[in-house]
Amino acid sequence: MIYITRRERFSAAHRMYREEWTDEKNLKVFGKCSNPNWHGHNYVLYVTVKGEPAENLGFFININTLKRIIKDKVIDKIDHRNLNLEVSFMQGKIATTENLAIAIWDELKPAVEKEGAILHCIKISETENNSIEYYGKEY
Amino acid sequence: MIYITRRERFSAAHRMYREEWTDEKNLKVFGKCSNPNWHGHNYVLYVTVKGEPAENLGFFININTLKRIIKDKVIDKIDHRNLNLEVSFMQGKIATTENLAIAIWDELKPAVEKEGAILHCIKISETENNSIEYYGKEY
Amino acid sequence: MIYITRRERFSAAHRMYREEWTDEKNLKVFGKCSNPNWHGHNYVLYVTVKGEPAENLGFFININTLKRIIKDKVIDKIDHRNLNLEVSFMQGKIATTENLAIAIWDELKPAVEKEGAILHCIKISETENNSIEYYGKEY
Amino acid sequence: MIYITRRERFSAAHRMYREEWTDEKNLKVFGKCSNPNWHGHNYVLYVTVKGEPAENLGFFININTLKRIIKDKVIDKIDHRNLNLEVSFMQGKIATTENLAIAIWDELKPAVEKEGAILHCIKISETENNSIEYYGKEY
Amino acid sequence: MIYITRRERFSAAHRMYREEWTDEKNLKVFGKCSNPNWHGHNYVLYVTVKGEPAENLGFFININTLKRIIKDKVIDKIDHRNLNLEVSFMQGKIATTENLAIAIWDELKPAVEKEGAILHCIKISETENNSIEYYGKEY
Amino acid sequence: MIYITRRERFSAAHRMYREEWTDEKNLKVFGKCSNPNWHGHNYVLYVTVKGEPAENLGFFININTLKRIIKDKVIDKIDHRNLNLEVSFMQGKIATTENLAIAIWDELKPAVEKEGAILHCIKISETENNSIEYYGKEY
Repeated sequence: MIYITRRERFSAAHRMYREEWTDEKNLKVFGKCSNPNWHGHNYVLYVTVKGEPAENLGFFININTLKRIIKDKVIDKIDHRNLNLEVSFMQGKIATTENLAIAIWDELKPAVEKEGAILHCIKISETENNSIEYYGKEY
Repeated sequence: MIYITRRERFSAAHRMYREEWTDEKNLKVFGKCSNPNWHGHNYVLYVTVKGEPAENLGFFININTLKRIIKDKVIDKIDHRNLNLEVSFMQGKIATTENLAIAIWDELKPAVEKEGAILHCIKISETENNSIEYYGKEY
Repeated sequence: MIYITRRERFSAAHRMYREEWTDEKNLKVFGKCSNPNWHGHNYVLYVTVKGEPAENLGFFININTLKRIIKDKVIDKIDHRNLNLEVSFMQGKIATTENLAIAIWDELKPAVEKEGAILHCIKISETENNSIEYYGKEY
Repeated sequence: MIYITRRERFSAAHRMYREEWTDEKNLKVFGKCSNPNWHGHNYVLYVTVKGEPAENLGFFININTLKRIIKDKVIDKIDHRNLNLEVSFMQGKIATTENLAIAIWDELKPAVEKEGAILHCIKISETENNSIEYYGKEY
Repeated sequence: MIYITRRERFSAAHRMYREEWTDEKNLKVFGKCSNPNWHGHNYVLYVTVKGEPAENLGFFININTLKRIIKDKVIDKIDHRNLNLEVSFMQGKIATTENLAIAIWDELKPAVEKEGAILHCIKISETENNSIEYYGKEY
Repeated sequence: MIYITRRERFSAAHRMYREEWTDEKNLKVFGKCSNPNWHGHNYVLYVTVKGEPAENLGFFININTLKRIIKDKVIDKIDHRNLNLEVSFMQGKIATTENLAIAIWDELKPAVEKEGAILHCIKISETENNSIEYYGKEY
């Protein structure tokens, strides 16, 4: 089994909050990340898929196929957007990086599997100091 | 003359646009950076000051003094904020990184000079691929 | 299960040696890392914890809580210190990065568990080329 | 069990293609990576080995031993070379990073085991955006 | 005056040598960089241009214009190519990074000036340890 | 004129203090960097030299020559050492990065000039956030 990781980047605005809470309660729970006027990040996304390389090709998925899937399913929908207001797969969810990783996993899984590969890990770095990994429901 | 550079980071939301233009015109001129729902970045700020080290100290400005000035004058006002709506020194300006570098220069210059140092350069990286430098009006 | 990683940094002096050996023997076994006059590093520490995000929060541990635990239990005791002479949790141990990773694991585990999270991995980079990972006794 | 990772770098030329295919077919399958006049990369290699630290040493393998093994078995044979024409352990294989990772695994495994350590992972970054991991046949 | 820097990357094969010299002489002068079977790099290119921001725009050149110029004039001609055999602006020149920086300067200068900007610096990193800067003939 | 920069690294212990001051006064002036038990860093050194490339070579100094000079004059004397106790060119000086940059300039200048090149800049990063540049007495 070989693991291949593609790194992509997107810039987005977001705010961590629950609509049913007051701004005060949100600020108490989520801190400065709950600023009602938004803030934003350069998110770095690492998508890892695994598979058995075909002997006549030396790979199991063309990196350009993987790149195109990530662009179609994630980057085009999220880059230079507002996570809370504009990103379809984040609707109704608190805009934490944790929830974002799970949503991107769900977004990518069917497309990756259609190519005969297995989705292994979604890693997102929100800043150079904070990052999240998700390996699917079983782990 | 010795040059010392302090690197700091801040995360902010912004939008490039002119109020008197329609969203269409703004999008045409500024592209996706003009998204009305905002987007954001992890900005990296490099502040370079210069001076002659005092012989009995081996430096001309304590790095902690420089750090505190940048925190007080810039980071505390801009981190996890909206550049357009909330940052005092960006009011009435288009929120480009170019204007941000000039505004931060103006914000820091008096405080740096009060410490006997000379402000040399403000560098801001908006993404890993795009960065701006400003050396003051004379350069 | 979600994995969250916090990156922190500390600068410290150290020396790899066994007290009961001569300097010659220490230098033969540990090389230049055994210099009796010490040397030092900018260590980079990555602490990974895991858990199930609470639905009403979107996370299982507040990153600021994790940051505070690492600061209290590790950084405040080790930054700008001598690993061999001053760091309580390294007393009586050879100051290798391997032993440091295990000691930091033991230091952090109870505090992380008190927050309802599971400590998953301690990774320490001693230089850009050398790093250590520890996943607890079972792995 | 402790995991130690050594990072090394090498620069090499390569081309992805099958000899029995025409240039046209190769370009269709492998894209610009199949350029008949070659192209090249700064590859970054991460070798992870694991073991139980000896109590009287604080490590299970001297990092310099690991460094020497990687230099002898890999770097000296591959750095500033052509992967397709000159690298013994890539003969008869398509010069993908996937195949390279497997070949380097096979090259390093006996030498690492002779030192009493277990080879855990070969990771190769071909560019800052694309990387491959291999954990042996069982994973 | 504001300085804006765009970072781009390209992967290429090359060889340092003089045709009129024997392989032996070339290897003696240029070392392993003269390997007749080629080697290659992930080059990182930094293009810095300067100008006075227009007050109604907040910039003097749209970063996307700069990006397009670099793509058209440099990246499309050099990425995944052989510097010696295939790159028009390197014909008849020894394929050092020094000569590459000068050639890219000459390639970009007219196009940058047509946009009303001034080309300030071409920086190329060949590896993480070696880089070249060129500021034009006058410096 | 072409500028070439070589990056090297060294790990060292140090302490900022004046012998004639008490530990208390030293701690007040230099902060935690004055810890009497030492601390240390992974210093990153960037040496920039300039010159006119010879037409028949495509460079003005062989990067390996520059590398060897830096190794002989700096790295071999400073790596895995104590800046205050063991490094000849730091004797009698306060071990700040500012003084270190000036001392390394003085150490390298004659050797660089003997090769027909001009020393342009010594840059040292003490941590990822703090760095120093020195361009000689005239700047």
